[in-house]
Amino acid sequence: MMALRTRLTERLGIRVPILSAPMGVTAGGRMASAVTEAGGLGLIAGLGPAGIANSAPWIEAQYAAAGNSRVGGGFITWMLASQPDLLDRMLDHAPVAVMLSFGDAAPFAPAVKRAGALLICQVQSMRYARQALDCGADIIVAQGGEAGGHGTTERATFTLVPEVADLLAKTSPDTLLIAAGGIGDGRGLAAALMLGADGVLIGSRFWTSAESLAATDVKRHALAADGDATIRTNVGDIANNSPWPTEFTGRILRNDLTDRWHGKEDALRAEGEAGRDRYRAALKLRDFRQLAVHVGEVAGLMTDELPVSRIVETIIGDAEKLLLRGAWQRA
Amino acid sequence: MMALRTRLTERLGIRVPILSAPMGVTAGGRMASAVTEAGGLGLIAGLGPAGIANSAPWIEAQYAAAGNSRVGGGFITWMLASQPDLLDRMLDHAPVAVMLSFGDAAPFAPAVKRAGALLICQVQSMRYARQALDCGADIIVAQGGEAGGHGTTERATFTLVPEVADLLAKTSPDTLLIAAGGIGDGRGLAAALMLGADGVLIGSRFWTSAESLAATDVKRHALAADGDATIRTNVGDIANNSPWPTEFTGRILRNDLTDRWHGKEDALRAEGEAGRDRYRAALKLRDFRQLAVHVGEVAGLMTDELPVSRIVETIIGDAEKLLLRGAWQRA
Repeated sequence: MMALRTRLTERLGIRVPILSAPMGVTAGGRMASAVTEAGGLGLIAGLGPAGIANSAPWIEAQYAAAGNSRVGGGFITWMLASQPDLLDRMLDHAPVAVMLSFGDAAPFAPAVKRAGALLICQVQSMRYARQALDCGADIIVAQGGEAGGHGTTERATFTLVPEVADLLAKTSPDTLLIAAGGIGDGRGLAAALMLGADGVLIGSRFWTSAESLAATDVKRHALAADGDATIRTNVGDIANNSPWPTEFTGRILRNDLTDRWHGKEDALRAEGEAGRDRYRAALKLRDFRQLAVHVGEVAGLMTDELPVSRIVETIIGDAEKLLLRGAWQRA
Repeated sequence: MMALRTRLTERLGIRVPILSAPMGVTAGGRMASAVTEAGGLGLIAGLGPAGIANSAPWIEAQYAAAGNSRVGGGFITWMLASQPDLLDRMLDHAPVAVMLSFGDAAPFAPAVKRAGALLICQVQSMRYARQALDCGADIIVAQGGEAGGHGTTERATFTLVPEVADLLAKTSPDTLLIAAGGIGDGRGLAAALMLGADGVLIGSRFWTSAESLAATDVKRHALAADGDATIRTNVGDIANNSPWPTEFTGRILRNDLTDRWHGKEDALRAEGEAGRDRYRAALKLRDFRQLAVHVGEVAGLMTDELPVSRIVETIIGDAEKLLLRGAWQRA
């Protein structure tokens, strides 16, 4: 059985330093359970397909789908703020950890800690990393802009991870660090460890897995793309009538929608209901030229829908080869 | 004497897989020579302080300053297109390699090859990587958007490097790959090797070195910044009246200039001579709140002006420690 030990595997009691991102709508109990069974830690999304206001039954259903697997959960923080009781619904299931992303984690940190769950805060900059420490984060996820889905353009994984590592070493050495954004294979895991991370959080690669709740056609669409095919933009959220703070853009596939509206966000907003009708029509037709397909730059490093177990095995196997017998030699 | 062997060190006949970026105006013969003497390969910029039209005497002077060191050179390709004879001035000095960045390398590739220099093409996307292969590049530099100075926001180092590595493995296995963007310490070098690079190109870290021709006050300003302090924008070039194609933005320190004009580029352009006068006045006063200070996200990983030899030694020493005895264990 494969294993790769770091401070993160020790702290979480897992075998491989891989967490799955609690991606809204697609990271359900089946995916989370599969990641845990493969040796990592799966995180169930706190956001279901009917929106945050109706996520309580989703959380119940997904914890049921995870069965007896030891999993965690995660929320989009600014959405949780509108339905704070959902945190209790999550904590009812005794998650190993609760991850909070995109917004102020401070109001929710005490409840997570009281429940005995580890508090994971995802950050996109040094400013947010310092805020996460102030909240008492047990684990910080440093997310670079190359990540799929929501994030910011402010920093890239390659520089944010070592800079947060330096901050933690200086001010909070027991806080662990996870890299996110651009990681989908063994090279990414090995590189993240070199940069100072204790492990990785993987989104897009698991989003395309067999256990993901994403539809097959949209997964195929993303798997066929190369890494140049994505863009970070507010256009998807505006078209889809999703009230994300504009600071957090979505990395989505470039298509007719982004070609037409990226850089003209105000005009798209001004369209109002007409634009939203067009989006709903495209959704009905599965017209991916007009829809926001969230995937990271890592799209260029993946081609097949695979079971989670196979994805994790390959990542760990490849990372170990690189870590133990790389292409360098001491002269 | 320190050494770390890769395919790149073998091909170039050097001891450590580190090249210095041929940064316009600041990467002179003294810096290039110091990088070569430290075991890497220094590249002299083809662009001097009086502009590309007057760069011939600069090239002579900087090769003279490099003395007998084995160095290479580099050009901003779209600028070279306006003064193509400068390539011959560079080739007169038998550079080990010539690096071409930002523009179509095809017209210049044959002369570089005929002169027996290795052709290095810097790319920012898969599209440009394929073009570089079509030009017959011996070495491709994959530059992520986190890099200082000019580049694009299209891709990040963390995903671009492995994706180009896959392309090369499939279509041109003898072409070597260098990572650029965000690399300033041993962690970055080790991570780049994990991602599939044969070596690294370093800009900002050498730009702050003792041998850099950048002024002490501007170096200090950049060294004091953290990694959140930069932004990729056209504002610096517009204010400075530099006709860069807008596709290539400059990563510069956020300041009053970028706060005021980023996102309002057309208004800055419309100011015309008044805006340029203001910029020249700020330059005279060394008012860094109003000037474009080019530095990468790696600003957050460096604090001191150091000699090149010390920078290289530290990078190699730290990378070796990570590569040979990391924080992971086989279970």
